[in-house]
Amino acid sequence: MFPGANADVDDAAYVVVGAPLDVSTSFQPGARFGPDRVRRFARGFEDYDHHTDQSFVSLDVADAGDVHAWDAAEEYLDFLEAELRDVVRDDAVPLLVGGEHTVTAAGVAAVDPDVLVVLDAHLDLREELDGNPWSHATVTRHALETVDEAVVLGARAGSDAEWERANEADVTVVPPEDVSEWTPDFDGDAYLSVDIDAADPGFAPGTGTPEPFGLTPREMRRVVRDVAPRAAGFDVVEVNDGDDGQAPVLAAKLLRAFVFAHASSR
Amino acid sequence: MFPGANADVDDAAYVVVGAPLDVSTSFQPGARFGPDRVRRFARGFEDYDHHTDQSFVSLDVADAGDVHAWDAAEEYLDFLEAELRDVVRDDAVPLLVGGEHTVTAAGVAAVDPDVLVVLDAHLDLREELDGNPWSHATVTRHALETVDEAVVLGARAGSDAEWERANEADVTVVPPEDVSEWTPDFDGDAYLSVDIDAADPGFAPGTGTPEPFGLTPREMRRVVRDVAPRAAGFDVVEVNDGDDGQAPVLAAKLLRAFVFAHASSR
Amino acid sequence: MFPGANADVDDAAYVVVGAPLDVSTSFQPGARFGPDRVRRFARGFEDYDHHTDQSFVSLDVADAGDVHAWDAAEEYLDFLEAELRDVVRDDAVPLLVGGEHTVTAAGVAAVDPDVLVVLDAHLDLREELDGNPWSHATVTRHALETVDEAVVLGARAGSDAEWERANEADVTVVPPEDVSEWTPDFDGDAYLSVDIDAADPGFAPGTGTPEPFGLTPREMRRVVRDVAPRAAGFDVVEVNDGDDGQAPVLAAKLLRAFVFAHASSR
Amino acid sequence: MFPGANADVDDAAYVVVGAPLDVSTSFQPGARFGPDRVRRFARGFEDYDHHTDQSFVSLDVADAGDVHAWDAAEEYLDFLEAELRDVVRDDAVPLLVGGEHTVTAAGVAAVDPDVLVVLDAHLDLREELDGNPWSHATVTRHALETVDEAVVLGARAGSDAEWERANEADVTVVPPEDVSEWTPDFDGDAYLSVDIDAADPGFAPGTGTPEPFGLTPREMRRVVRDVAPRAAGFDVVEVNDGDDGQAPVLAAKLLRAFVFAHASSR
Amino acid sequence: MFPGANADVDDAAYVVVGAPLDVSTSFQPGARFGPDRVRRFARGFEDYDHHTDQSFVSLDVADAGDVHAWDAAEEYLDFLEAELRDVVRDDAVPLLVGGEHTVTAAGVAAVDPDVLVVLDAHLDLREELDGNPWSHATVTRHALETVDEAVVLGARAGSDAEWERANEADVTVVPPEDVSEWTPDFDGDAYLSVDIDAADPGFAPGTGTPEPFGLTPREMRRVVRDVAPRAAGFDVVEVNDGDDGQAPVLAAKLLRAFVFAHASSR
Amino acid sequence: MFPGANADVDDAAYVVVGAPLDVSTSFQPGARFGPDRVRRFARGFEDYDHHTDQSFVSLDVADAGDVHAWDAAEEYLDFLEAELRDVVRDDAVPLLVGGEHTVTAAGVAAVDPDVLVVLDAHLDLREELDGNPWSHATVTRHALETVDEAVVLGARAGSDAEWERANEADVTVVPPEDVSEWTPDFDGDAYLSVDIDAADPGFAPGTGTPEPFGLTPREMRRVVRDVAPRAAGFDVVEVNDGDDGQAPVLAAKLLRAFVFAHASSR
Ligand SMILES: [Mn+2]
Ligand SMILES: [Mn+2]
Ligand SMILES: [Mn+2]
Ligand SMILES: [Mn+2]
Ligand SMILES: [Mn+2]
Ligand SMILES: [Mn+2]
Ligand SMILES: [Mn+2]
Ligand SMILES: [Mn+2]
Ligand SMILES: [Mn+2]
Ligand SMILES: [Mn+2]
Ligand SMILES: [Mn+2]
Ligand SMILES: [Mn+2]
Repeated sequence: MFPGANADVDDAAYVVVGAPLDVSTSFQPGARFGPDRVRRFARGFEDYDHHTDQSFVSLDVADAGDVHAWDAAEEYLDFLEAELRDVVRDDAVPLLVGGEHTVTAAGVAAVDPDVLVVLDAHLDLREELDGNPWSHATVTRHALETVDEAVVLGARAGSDAEWERANEADVTVVPPEDVSEWTPDFDGDAYLSVDIDAADPGFAPGTGTPEPFGLTPREMRRVVRDVAPRAAGFDVVEVNDGDDGQAPVLAAKLLRAFVFAHASSR
Repeated sequence: MFPGANADVDDAAYVVVGAPLDVSTSFQPGARFGPDRVRRFARGFEDYDHHTDQSFVSLDVADAGDVHAWDAAEEYLDFLEAELRDVVRDDAVPLLVGGEHTVTAAGVAAVDPDVLVVLDAHLDLREELDGNPWSHATVTRHALETVDEAVVLGARAGSDAEWERANEADVTVVPPEDVSEWTPDFDGDAYLSVDIDAADPGFAPGTGTPEPFGLTPREMRRVVRDVAPRAAGFDVVEVNDGDDGQAPVLAAKLLRAFVFAHASSR
Repeated sequence: MFPGANADVDDAAYVVVGAPLDVSTSFQPGARFGPDRVRRFARGFEDYDHHTDQSFVSLDVADAGDVHAWDAAEEYLDFLEAELRDVVRDDAVPLLVGGEHTVTAAGVAAVDPDVLVVLDAHLDLREELDGNPWSHATVTRHALETVDEAVVLGARAGSDAEWERANEADVTVVPPEDVSEWTPDFDGDAYLSVDIDAADPGFAPGTGTPEPFGLTPREMRRVVRDVAPRAAGFDVVEVNDGDDGQAPVLAAKLLRAFVFAHASSR
Repeated sequence: MFPGANADVDDAAYVVVGAPLDVSTSFQPGARFGPDRVRRFARGFEDYDHHTDQSFVSLDVADAGDVHAWDAAEEYLDFLEAELRDVVRDDAVPLLVGGEHTVTAAGVAAVDPDVLVVLDAHLDLREELDGNPWSHATVTRHALETVDEAVVLGARAGSDAEWERANEADVTVVPPEDVSEWTPDFDGDAYLSVDIDAADPGFAPGTGTPEPFGLTPREMRRVVRDVAPRAAGFDVVEVNDGDDGQAPVLAAKLLRAFVFAHASSR
Repeated sequence: MFPGANADVDDAAYVVVGAPLDVSTSFQPGARFGPDRVRRFARGFEDYDHHTDQSFVSLDVADAGDVHAWDAAEEYLDFLEAELRDVVRDDAVPLLVGGEHTVTAAGVAAVDPDVLVVLDAHLDLREELDGNPWSHATVTRHALETVDEAVVLGARAGSDAEWERANEADVTVVPPEDVSEWTPDFDGDAYLSVDIDAADPGFAPGTGTPEPFGLTPREMRRVVRDVAPRAAGFDVVEVNDGDDGQAPVLAAKLLRAFVFAHASSR
Repeated sequence: MFPGANADVDDAAYVVVGAPLDVSTSFQPGARFGPDRVRRFARGFEDYDHHTDQSFVSLDVADAGDVHAWDAAEEYLDFLEAELRDVVRDDAVPLLVGGEHTVTAAGVAAVDPDVLVVLDAHLDLREELDGNPWSHATVTRHALETVDEAVVLGARAGSDAEWERANEADVTVVPPEDVSEWTPDFDGDAYLSVDIDAADPGFAPGTGTPEPFGLTPREMRRVVRDVAPRAAGFDVVEVNDGDDGQAPVLAAKLLRAFVFAHASSR
């Protein structure tokens, strides 16, 4: 259980859902261990948040455990989406913990927001990768079937075709150097997705496709805090078991930052 | 390159082929790193083999590199099989290095032997796993579409249905305790497949589904030496990057033991 | 949750209880991660056991989770004992997963057996260690306050005073070399405790005080199978997070071997 | 021996003392390996310091080895304090290397300074943790029994009650974002304690309770250099063996920065 | 093969050469694994570079494999230099991947540039180390036998004698704090050498002598991009296998940044 | 300090000497960390030995620390030999802890025994390796300049030329399968050298050139116990820092087994 997520799923305002999908990871596998790692490294945290003067246990967060993954990604995403729709139907905010980034497609579909805000080193705008239309590298494109706009913060890698796609009106790319200047300027409500590889590998080595020259943890936290009040869904993805805790401890902290900022804005 | 595999692929008597498939691994991923790990840990070996009084470099072994894997296992196996058929057509013996056990299906199809001899902790006789008919846990069943008989040495795990299937006439199961007594008694030629998890996890922790109470390295070597003279194809699979070298060093040594025994019997 | 431990605690025949105590570990810490590791490495196992022709999920095993540990060992043991007494009162067999060996004191007190059978590299017969009467190195002595006899299998280390204590009538020590000859010859019912360091460090490096020249996994399994039919409680302890899975995968398998053997003898 | 600490303890100006206490670590253990790790990772350093134009070996630093720890923290702290008093009595500056943060209580008691300056992610102002009044999370409070004022630099975590305690006149908290602005403005002499978790986990993952959004190494060095001239004692704590050298190499360098700055101000 | 380095060595504009020398590493060994690690961690990268709008595979980069190293450093450097001279003679730019920093001596000798620009935590201006005139700590001095000027960016460690040597007219040292201000102001052409330990250990822990308080990855990339247009040779050295990918992923990315910047300036 | 080696070097009956030479390791480096690792993993042992009824601390063992190594192997061996001669002159038995196997040359030269008994996977009878006459792979040959006979127990690897050399009268090779049958049958006194790679890699993965199909720990201990009474010098070598403690804990235990057996035979 995510530490402090003591609420019952039925009464919760926020529901942690683990989604250990790990089939399309193209370089280093292990995203399947993400939910475990994130929960484990959250054990060292204080319940109390000084920044918002709130106690995590008092915020009605539940942990629904993991939605067991298998290797048929598309089927799994349908199943996961249904689980997340239940969370949304109960007026709770889903807090999805990946697993590979593909799971965001289920999160976005369940929440049906106007905008996707995503922290990511990669554009994830491919149509397919190695013939797989459900690769983690396609997730922003899938989300664009639902949302009106995608804002990709910290992106520094993509194919030629992806950068072209990013030039269209429904995508905004903010390079890592400019993320500290960005403020939420979109209309409507949002879904916030944190691909941990948005961070520089020094701060999050345990991820499938580390990409140097990334964000600092504080830049990521600032985005999370600013977007949270307008977000109806959240995920943090692509944490694996390949480091000494840097990636999961950052992921866990960003999840908490989301909850604290969201709750204090209500 | 596998150390000592200096021959040209076209002139070779043995061809190392890496097959880093890693999609259906159900517990611990990393089989994609198997070919690299096996080649790397072979660097510490002497070229000369005292047991057979042969030099490895003199045995016309080539290394064809890896057949790049993607996540559509069935397509990949077709492609891999074609590559291996080329090897067989050139009268060379393929030495496949996985990757997950599923790749054996391609090896067996390319070699078309009478018998499959497999060292494995698991029966791998499932029809599917989590809906996937090309899971590593189905590979012996797939091989039975080609071979007349499968001999599974060291098996100690399987589902109820797999054990039932194993009772049929075309399957022989030798439990770990009896492997040291077993001698090749089959008719025709063989394909020898070594799932490294046949070994006790103390000797091969770096594998996808370690299973205690397994074989000793010498028991495995004895089987390899005895089967090699009658084998037309070989693989060693399920080595990952999750240990301190125990699994890949054993795998590399067994591959060499196969070549030395096969060559000295010609 | 321990894989397959799907029963409700209230209706269970066996109850897994994690006891992540980790305060007196004198050399390498990390026993606190034992319950997590043991549960995680059990994920790779088949549900079905061919040896006894039983399905694990059908044996009414529940997982009660962990009894959160703090650093006042004596208090903690009282609390843990009360939890385990509840299990015993419900006619279930407790399956304790440590944590340091000290937790066996709670297990023995709750079960109140006639005999303690313990697999351990160490005698654990100290009166105190560094002034601590509740050190892991004292646990057999504590158990002797409850049981009539202690049988220590695989012991190869102890202080001079411990070996003297071991000469008394209520203690039987079987050195590693003789364990394969030993058969249960005690009167009454037993509590079986497996300190994973009974195994040779090659088979279980992830433990607090590894001691070479130990048992093989099969020797340990044989003892577990033979003692289980007469045991009313079980634990496996001293697994930490310092290896590549060897210790937890063996521990998980021995726990299952206990359940399978116990259930099939009923 | 800390590299370059070649002086005799009796003639030394500075004395390194290892204090491998590791009993109350609440999340990840291993602080017991801190002294070893810090000494080991200092082996790669040049003796000469360009910043102050001094040679480390010429500064009369001795290494008194470790004060062997056991699990009765309070007793141990008394014993350690006595050892450190001997250092102080000989007009040497103690350089304590933890071990968990609790050991600072002994350092402060032995040095008896006016002010405690502490770099830490945590307030460590608890009265007890899980009933333990000598937990690492209580050390600043214990120090306040001796000092007139505590300045906690980089703090970003604490319970509600700790933050309230921090509001009292004898505590100053400087959040991570403001540390680069802070300059020593206290009266009297100081004891400087460096909890390595003050750093962002990217720079010091090997610590018991990593807390994202922390300080950079240069911010920490600046504080050490500015406080050293007014400090009569120093420690660096909470380094464990759970990373690839980042935490111990930073700790070792900060210890040296302290000595260089202190010596050049004399 | 370095991913995307698909050109033939004979037709290439750039040639990757691995130089796994690892004999004089004074603290942590493993530089021999640098070429493998750098190639492996480059597998996660996109072929396309948005910054320069170029595709890596289109830039005629070849990978010549490794020049097998042995422990007679001076002999090895002669041999390596000859290999690199062949590359230069073919009008290609060598991209050397160490191995220890000593290999730069061969690179500089083969390229014969006017200036050496080196990113390094260390001055590497020793005459010998432990009696070895071919230690990695002497490489800048060796290069000065060829070049007119050496610019050492990010240096923060050296012996007293090295700093004195650095005061001479042919050496410019830019401390880490000033690297972001530096721009190439030298005459003639350059050889650019990247000792990965120039980075702060948080960003590159896997190196032989990590030295805190170093450069950020972006600072290093800026230097690479600015120097590349005037450089005729490049290397990245001192990456070992002792981290979770931070050092090799940064090294691989800097190598690519060099190629992209160099190619787009032609 | 090796735990329990409390005697003064001048009065000692046995003197531990660390020799962290690590220059010729051909595959995996790290032998330089051997002395540290062996001492550290001995910390978990009881002082008392039940087998011989002796206390280690009572046996007058001293620890002289390490003889700092540099990369000129031949010079270093001379220096080391002189140190060891001092030990021998004081009528103490040297207990050398490597470092690479080359250090045995110094040990043998200092002790000047009639026979070398060596546990090793490798013959180490080369004249040179890659041009280096002081490679670890030459050490038995160097020893044969001093001793009349070398007995190599557990050898399973060597070049063709080495096996030929092994056929001469002054060398006896006992293959791993026959080691359990071997008993000391030589004349005169001995020097006993334990290359940890004699063990199967499952029991000692942390070594430079692991070689499967090796000895069990008990087989090695039996040899140590039987040879010790006739030995005047001992070493254990080739332990590195690349495993989870298996190699160093076995090495430390074999060193102690030597001392216990030697002392009880006096
Ligand atoms: Mn992504
Ligand atoms: Mn990404
Ligand atoms: Mn298999
Ligand atoms: Mn298997
Ligand atoms: Mn025990
Ligand atoms: Mn024990
Ligand atoms: Mn603290
Ligand atoms: Mn702290
Ligand atoms: Mn350098
Ligand atoms: Mn450097
Ligand atoms: Mn050797
Ligand atoms: Mn050897």
